[in-house]
Order: sequence, then structure tokens, then C-alpha cells
Amino acid sequence: MIKFVTNTTKESKQDLLKRLKKLEFDISEDEIFTSLTAARNLVEEKQVRPMLLVDDRALPDFKGIQTDDPNAVVIGLAPEHFHYPALNQAFRFSYLGLSRLLLDGAPLIAIHKARYYKRKDGLALGPGPFVTGLEYATDTKATVVGKPEKTFFLEALRGTGCEPQEAVMIGDDCRDDVGGAQNAGMLGILVKTGKYRAADEEKINPPPYLTCESFPHAVDHILQHLL
Amino acid sequence: MIKFVTNTTKESKQDLLKRLKKLEFDISEDEIFTSLTAARNLVEEKQVRPMLLVDDRALPDFKGIQTDDPNAVVIGLAPEHFHYPALNQAFRFSYLGLSRLLLDGAPLIAIHKARYYKRKDGLALGPGPFVTGLEYATDTKATVVGKPEKTFFLEALRGTGCEPQEAVMIGDDCRDDVGGAQNAGMLGILVKTGKYRAADEEKINPPPYLTCESFPHAVDHILQHLL
Repeated sequence: MIKFVTNTTKESKQDLLKRLKKLEFDISEDEIFTSLTAARNLVEEKQVRPMLLVDDRALPDFKGIQTDDPNAVVIGLAPEHFHYPALNQAFRFSYLGLSRLLLDGAPLIAIHKARYYKRKDGLALGPGPFVTGLEYATDTKATVVGKPEKTFFLEALRGTGCEPQEAVMIGDDCRDDVGGAQNAGMLGILVKTGKYRAADEEKINPPPYLTCESFPHAVDHILQHLL
Repeated sequence: MIKFVTNTTKESKQDLLKRLKKLEFDISEDEIFTSLTAARNLVEEKQVRPMLLVDDRALPDFKGIQTDDPNAVVIGLAPEHFHYPALNQAFRFSYLGLSRLLLDGAPLIAIHKARYYKRKDGLALGPGPFVTGLEYATDTKATVVGKPEKTFFLEALRGTGCEPQEAVMIGDDCRDDVGGAQNAGMLGILVKTGKYRAADEEKINPPPYLTCESFPHAVDHILQHLL
């Protein structure tokens, strides 16, 4: 049983599926679990009407969610929405939401809190700084739904019949992928590709269960030693 | 000896002087000390070239400061600059500034860190959330120059020949005015006008030296008991 998990804030499940199929992955929609799905699940569970500060391309993942008269905020990486009027509106909704819905507990939902990401023209601000700013303004804490949250990994396993201690996470982000998965009770394998940088494996304690050159090496290890 | 001290981020000293004179205050420019002046002083002391994320009306207070090829950021309340491209630029300058100028120590200078302020149409985000966001993104701490920082009050006294323990601060903001001044060794008097709200005096420990109805009452007290 395989699940693709990702912290995307701008790619809907459908777009992701298309992209993975182009890369010749034989994959179906229910094998993908993303931070956008996790956010949607939380919105449904809390029965709130969010103001969606997310990339327009992410909107299909929130189809059918009521967004009028908002009493919560969902925030992802959305540079086009990160300007004073929109952030001020989000502040007011979260702030009013807090006083109106004391039992709510989830007025500010963050897809994830990355500080920055790599763009073609260099480093650029992630959603984290804007989430943190709203947290500071409203004197509250956002509920983070993406990696490295424990709940993200546990929810990815839901319905698979697989327990965390039977699961292995493979990823190139030591803290978000490996640290988060291990914190949820899984084994974590760090691969030295993609965003990996030298000595990344020293960033977490306990260290990754395994660090290896690439994804195929990780799969080989699993086939030889963990089945 | 009287000093007018304020956390303004958008009113230059000249504009403030004009406004106070209109209110019939007999006052000269050197009797005013603002957070913008404090920021300028720090910029000159650190010899940095700041990107100025401040309201256009505040720019006269930075006249003559070199701002090309920036290696620092000064941030005040500037809604018109609080959008992704400008904040991203500030992030890059602070971030590069950090790695380029390790001995610098002041790449991010915040006029103050107010969470929000009262606008005609309701509460609106202050500079604090944006400062906090940049702090989070760059993994550093801003140097705050305005109230309630101890250095702000000490600098306001500089050249007056007056020691902190001989000075009295009168203000309507319990934490920023009274708490800050008392923390710098002054006496603090809280007046129940302006932004004062019931029980504000309980917000700080030690409590204000005195809480009274209005500014004239505070002056009466000083004349009767402290001279």
C-alpha cells in the first residue's frame, strides 16, 4: 500500500494526479493525500465557513465548502492574497471569530508554516511568515494541518488498515518528512535528492531511521529488510 | 524640562510640530522625540543603508540617509508597502544582510510592534504582525526602537541632563507608556483618557506610580508632590 503525501498549497489533487501520471506513475486519486485535503477535512470537521487565503489553483479542493459570512481563515501560500487589505480582513475574521465562537478552537487554519521556498529567482517568503503575523495579531495559535504535524501523517493512514509502526515515509525534507513521520510512530527514510543539503540528517533527534542516496535505494532497502 | 514622546510611524517631526502648535502647545522641535527619530539614530549608529518600509509621510525624518543597495530594513506602519513583493524584498535584504554582515546585529529595525490599531472602520493590523512575519522568515529578532523599549526612554532623556529617576512619564497606554518608562527607571502616570480602558492599570507589575483622570490632574500631582 502506497500513499503520496505532500505539503502542496497550490496544486489541487486533480492537477497533482495529472502531473504524476505524466511522470508515468500508476496512481489513483485515493492514493494521494495533501495538506489541502487535510485543511478541507478540518474545515468540515469544525463546521466553519472559511475565508480562503489560498492560491486560485487550490480552490477545486474546497469545492462545495461554504465560504460566505466567514468565521475562520484557511491560509496557504498565496502571494496574490498577501497584501494589507486581504490580511486585514483575515485578521478581523479570525479576531471576531475568536470572540464569537469561543468553543471553536480552529479559526486560523494553516496549510503549513514554511518560512520560505525556492523560486526560480531565489528564495521567496512562504506562508509561514503570514501565518505567524496573523497569530501575533490575534494572540492565538494557528492549527497547522500539513507536514510535519503528527495528525497529517496519521490522517494519511486513515482507512488503509496500516498502523504507524508498520509504515515507512520516504522524503527529502529531514524535518518535515522524516522527523514528522517518525514523530507519528513511522520509520523515516531521508533521500539525498531534491532539496536535501549536506548534513540535513543531523537536524533531527532521533536521527532518520535511514539516509540513502535516492528513492530507488530506499525502496530496495524496504524490500530487502522490512517486508 | 518637557519632552513629547510618541510611537508615530507616519508623522514626521515637522508635521507633528505643526499639529501640536495648532493645538496651541508652545513647543520647539527639540522637545519632540519620536520612534522615527529613534530609528534614524540607530541607522546612523549602525551605519547601514536601510530599505524603508515606512509611510511616505515619515520619509522627511530619514532625509539624507543612504538607501541604495540596502543592507538593512526599517519597518513601520505602512499598509501601502505591506504586500508580497515588498515584503519579499525586505526578507531578502534582511536575510542576505544577515549572512553578509555577521557583525551587524541590526538588519531588521522595527519602529514598534503594535498588533493592531483603531481605525475609523474598526481594528486594523499594525506593523507588529509584519515585523513578526519577517522575524520568523529570517529566523532573527528585530531591534525595536519605539515604546515600550527601555532604550527609547533613555534616548529621549539624552542631552537633557535629567536622570531617569528624576523623570516622570505621563501617558494613556499602560504597557507602552507607563510600563516602558517605569522599566527605564522613571515614574509613570497613567491617565484615563484617549485609548485608556477600564482596568488597564492592572496590566503591569509593578503598577503605575499613579493613575488619574486626565493630563491636568497628572500635572497638578507633579507640581504638588514631586518638585
